[in-house]
Amino acid sequence: MEKPIIYLNRNFREEFIQQTKDIAPEYEIKRTLTPEDLPAVEISLGWDKKLADFFLSDQSNLKWIQSISAGVDYMPLNKFKQKDILLSNASGIHAVSISEHVIGVLLAYYRGIIPSVLAQSKKHWLKKEISYDQISGKRMLIIGTGHIGQQLAASVKSLGVQVFGINSSGHPAENFIETYSFKNRLKIAEEMDIVINILPLTEETTGIYNTDFFEAMKATGVFMNVGRGGSVSIADLETALRNHTIQFASLDVFDQEPLPSDSPLWELENLLITPHISGMTVNFQQKLMDIFLANLKTYHENQELSINQIDFSKGY
Amino acid sequence: MEKPIIYLNRNFREEFIQQTKDIAPEYEIKRTLTPEDLPAVEISLGWDKKLADFFLSDQSNLKWIQSISAGVDYMPLNKFKQKDILLSNASGIHAVSISEHVIGVLLAYYRGIIPSVLAQSKKHWLKKEISYDQISGKRMLIIGTGHIGQQLAASVKSLGVQVFGINSSGHPAENFIETYSFKNRLKIAEEMDIVINILPLTEETTGIYNTDFFEAMKATGVFMNVGRGGSVSIADLETALRNHTIQFASLDVFDQEPLPSDSPLWELENLLITPHISGMTVNFQQKLMDIFLANLKTYHENQELSINQIDFSKGY
Repeated sequence: MEKPIIYLNRNFREEFIQQTKDIAPEYEIKRTLTPEDLPAVEISLGWDKKLADFFLSDQSNLKWIQSISAGVDYMPLNKFKQKDILLSNASGIHAVSISEHVIGVLLAYYRGIIPSVLAQSKKHWLKKEISYDQISGKRMLIIGTGHIGQQLAASVKSLGVQVFGINSSGHPAENFIETYSFKNRLKIAEEMDIVINILPLTEETTGIYNTDFFEAMKATGVFMNVGRGGSVSIADLETALRNHTIQFASLDVFDQEPLPSDSPLWELENLLITPHISGMTVNFQQKLMDIFLANLKTYHENQELSINQIDFSKGY
Repeated sequence: MEKPIIYLNRNFREEFIQQTKDIAPEYEIKRTLTPEDLPAVEISLGWDKKLADFFLSDQSNLKWIQSISAGVDYMPLNKFKQKDILLSNASGIHAVSISEHVIGVLLAYYRGIIPSVLAQSKKHWLKKEISYDQISGKRMLIIGTGHIGQQLAASVKSLGVQVFGINSSGHPAENFIETYSFKNRLKIAEEMDIVINILPLTEETTGIYNTDFFEAMKATGVFMNVGRGGSVSIADLETALRNHTIQFASLDVFDQEPLPSDSPLWELENLLITPHISGMTVNFQQKLMDIFLANLKTYHENQELSINQIDFSKGY
C-alpha cells in the first residue's frame, strides 16, 4: 500500500517540512500531485479549488484540511461535513495585523493623514482645510468578539476608546465594557461612534450592513469592514455615504476582488478603500505552522484537532 | 488710576471670560487694545508679535504671558527674562493629539495605508505591490520625555512597542524601558527601528538630526519630527532619504511653513509631509483655560504661576 500523503498547497520552508516529518514520519509530503497521488492524500495544508472535484468524490481519502485563512466561507462546508472531513482555520494569526490596520485607518481618518497624503501628491499644504478629531474617548462597537475582536479591543482600550462588543449570544469577552447579542445590533449601533465588522460570512451575516443599519448609526459614525465583503450591502453603503447618513467608511474586503476599476466606490470622498491588506502578516508561515503542527500532533495520535476546528453547524 | 488689563489675543467663549472675571474682578478683560490701553496691560493670553515692541519697552507694565502653544522658541525669551516677565506655555494640551498623530502615521506607513490612499485616487487595486510590516515588537526611541513623550510612550507600549527615551540628563521617565542622556543619542539610535523627535527648539537642539544622526540609524529605520522644524537639517534628511540611508521619514513641522511648493521634499516617495497638524486638538479652548485659570489663581494671590512656567535658563 502507498504511503498516505500530506499535500502542501503552497511552499513552506524546509525547517517546517522537517518538523512535519518528525511528527508524522509515515506520511509522504508533496508540493505537487500526479493524478495517481490523489487517492493517497489524507491531509491538505491549504484548500486547492482545482482539486475540489476529486477531493469531494468517493475516490478521495482526504480526512483533514488545514486552511491558511481565518475565514472559510469560500469552501464547500456542507460537503466536508457529509464526508466527515475535518477543517481547521488560521484564526488568530491575523489578530495583531488586523488590529493595527483598523487603528491605522481610524487615525489616518480622524487625524487628517488621508488628506495630507493626497495633498502631498499635489505639493499642496492643506492645513486650514483639514478637519480633525481624536480617537481617545470614542465609543467603538466591535461586531465579532473572537481572536481578532479581542486583540483589537485590548489595543484600542489602551488608546482611551470605550469598547463594546456584539457576538451571537451576547456572551462576555475580555476587554469589552459590555457585550450584546447579535439581534440587538441596530439598537446598540445608535450609540456608537465607530462600528467595526469582523464577523465571518455565514447565511446569518450576509448583507446585514444595509440601509437599516446605516440609518441606525450616528450621522458622525464611522464604519469599517475587515470581515467579509458579503456582509455589507454595497449599494446601501454607497447611498449612506453619498447622503452622509454616516460620516466615513473604510472597506478592506469586497465580494469581488480586485474591486473593478469602474466601481463607483473608488470616487467616494468619505470612503477609504484598501486592497484586502488588513490581514497581511509578517512571519505568517511560522504562525500558520504553529497551528498546523499542534493539530498534526493530535491528529496523528487520535485523529482529532486540538485548535481552530470549524464547527460546521456554525460555519466558523 | 486705570484698571489693569488682561489682554486676550484670540476669541474665547463667554463662560471662560466670566471665570476669569470671577477670579480677578479688578481687571478689565479686552480683546482689542487702543494705544491708550497698552500701558495698562499686565497679563496677555497669547503672544501678539505686533505688540512686541511696546511690550518690551519701558512704558509696558506686562507681567505675565500665557502662551497658547507648547513651544515658545519663537518668543524673545531673553528680553522677557531681563524685564522679569513671567511666561507659561500650553504644554500637555497636545499630548493625546500628537501621540495619536505619531501612531497614525507609523501605522499608515507600516500597514500600507499610504499607498492604498494614493492608489484609490487612481482607481487602482494595489495589493501585490504593497509591502507591510507591523509596529508591534518594534523598538522606538522617543527623544524628549516630557508630557507628550510620556503620553506617546504609554500608548505605543500598549501596542507592543518597546519604548526607549532620551532627555537632557538621562533621568528616568514613566513608561520608558530605559532613558539615556542627550549626548548618547547617536549610540542609542543605532539600535532603534523608529526615532521620534519631540524636543523643544533651543540652541542645543538646532540641527541635531543631521547626516551623522541618519547614518547612525538602521537602514530600515523610520524618523519622525513632531517637535520643531529647526531641529532637522533638511538637506541632510533629503540626502538620507534619497540614498536610503534610512527607510522612511515623516515631518509635521518645518522651518518655513507652509512648506514652499518648489521644495524638493514634496516628491520624495519615502517621506510623508503633514502640514503641522499633529497638535490639532479638540476642546483646545477648554484645555488652555484649565491652565490659564490655574495660573491666574496663584498669580492673583501672590504673583506666582502654578503650572507650565518656562525656565528661561533652559528655554522650555
